[in-house]
Amino acid sequence: MMGETVKTHPIKGQLLHEGKAKRVYLTSDPDRYIQEFKDSATAFDGIKKATIEGKGSINCRVSARIFRYLEEEWDVKTHFVDLISDNEMVILPVEIIPLEVVARNIAAGSMVKRLGFEEGYRLPFTVIEFYLKDDSLHDPIMNNDHVFAKGIANEEEISYLHREAHKINDGLIEFFGQIGIDLVDFKLEFGRRPDGTILLADEISSDTCRLWDKETGKKLDKDRFRFDLGDVEGAYQEILQRTGAGG
Amino acid sequence: MMGETVKTHPIKGQLLHEGKAKRVYLTSDPDRYIQEFKDSATAFDGIKKATIEGKGSINCRVSARIFRYLEEEWDVKTHFVDLISDNEMVILPVEIIPLEVVARNIAAGSMVKRLGFEEGYRLPFTVIEFYLKDDSLHDPIMNNDHVFAKGIANEEEISYLHREAHKINDGLIEFFGQIGIDLVDFKLEFGRRPDGTILLADEISSDTCRLWDKETGKKLDKDRFRFDLGDVEGAYQEILQRTGAGG
Repeated sequence: MMGETVKTHPIKGQLLHEGKAKRVYLTSDPDRYIQEFKDSATAFDGIKKATIEGKGSINCRVSARIFRYLEEEWDVKTHFVDLISDNEMVILPVEIIPLEVVARNIAAGSMVKRLGFEEGYRLPFTVIEFYLKDDSLHDPIMNNDHVFAKGIANEEEISYLHREAHKINDGLIEFFGQIGIDLVDFKLEFGRRPDGTILLADEISSDTCRLWDKETGKKLDKDRFRFDLGDVEGAYQEILQRTGAGG
Repeated sequence: MMGETVKTHPIKGQLLHEGKAKRVYLTSDPDRYIQEFKDSATAFDGIKKATIEGKGSINCRVSARIFRYLEEEWDVKTHFVDLISDNEMVILPVEIIPLEVVARNIAAGSMVKRLGFEEGYRLPFTVIEFYLKDDSLHDPIMNNDHVFAKGIANEEEISYLHREAHKINDGLIEFFGQIGIDLVDFKLEFGRRPDGTILLADEISSDTCRLWDKETGKKLDKDRFRFDLGDVEGAYQEILQRTGAGG
């Protein structure tokens, strides 16, 4: 065994936080957490709930694939460290910034309902939005002044989040474009390391992106669950296969 | 009569536009409109309706007083030309930009409901917001990207509206401060002249500002109507008197 590198992983400890789709655990290493992906799905502010068979393991592997790609090809700093099972990844501990950062290339969802764009309208440029992560307020949309007034981030950080969202969007358009998928929109979360560095956190998957097949327009994302479009598991499975995250 | 200046006003012509609180008429002068203020009041997206006795004439005179003040003391360009009766003013024709530009100094209204601030919380700085003027969409809030994507204004115009909103806020804080009133928040509308110049338009009154007595906290604005606080006419009358617009 001498001279060989044995890859070890930190040992899963106490549950730190349980969200709607994931659990985060402490580990034997104070500077590592384990993020575990669940099969449970929620929509419409938690009103609609269900279990999507295999979703946790698919989203975990897809997210790992995309985090690696963004790190390696686009120099994006993420919380991802390593995949340790189909539904668990080691991550760097961060304090999550309570913002959902949304990037939109094609009008869909709230962009249609709120602002009257037609679904499928290709926006003249990528629209970035910030939503407050606060279930009790139903995640209201915010402009920069609101973010500052809430004390959530300062001007420099907001500029950084804007730039990162655009860069990640460029990366994801290329990534999904190569596998025949239109990136309609997606949601990002970011977190702060103790030294103030901001990392891309959370996940990137069919739960957090709208993904439409370029040829057929078929929706390959959580909208199949939200709007009862059928074949939910099949759509998630297809993203796993096309992204090459299925091994 | 020789040597004397006789002040004449353009003659009121065809009704051009009727809104919830005002009518705009063409006049004998193609480069002048007449804006007439109505007593009718609406709230909550037009669901609540009533007549407030004397409101039209009060808001017209208060707006005239404030437009003059902003022009003279703060170099703000407005559509106001002259008051010709208690409820009619001559204005410069503009194409209204379909934005409600809101400035907030103290949390109230949607700032409380949407974002969870406490009513009366003095914001650390003035918050500027843009809402789409579109009844069918219920005037949704927008960030700058939405304004651009909707083709409503370009970057230079948005910067100008931001700067003007801050300058007008400074002016109004001073104006109302001198008469013992806290300027909580207010809504502005702007319009474009044929040469692209942007003017402050619409009105500035108890219908469009939240105004609280500095000593007692008494609300002297449309919230008395919205929330059935009583003495609506008295509050409007008090603003007329304190602003000195009552003659």
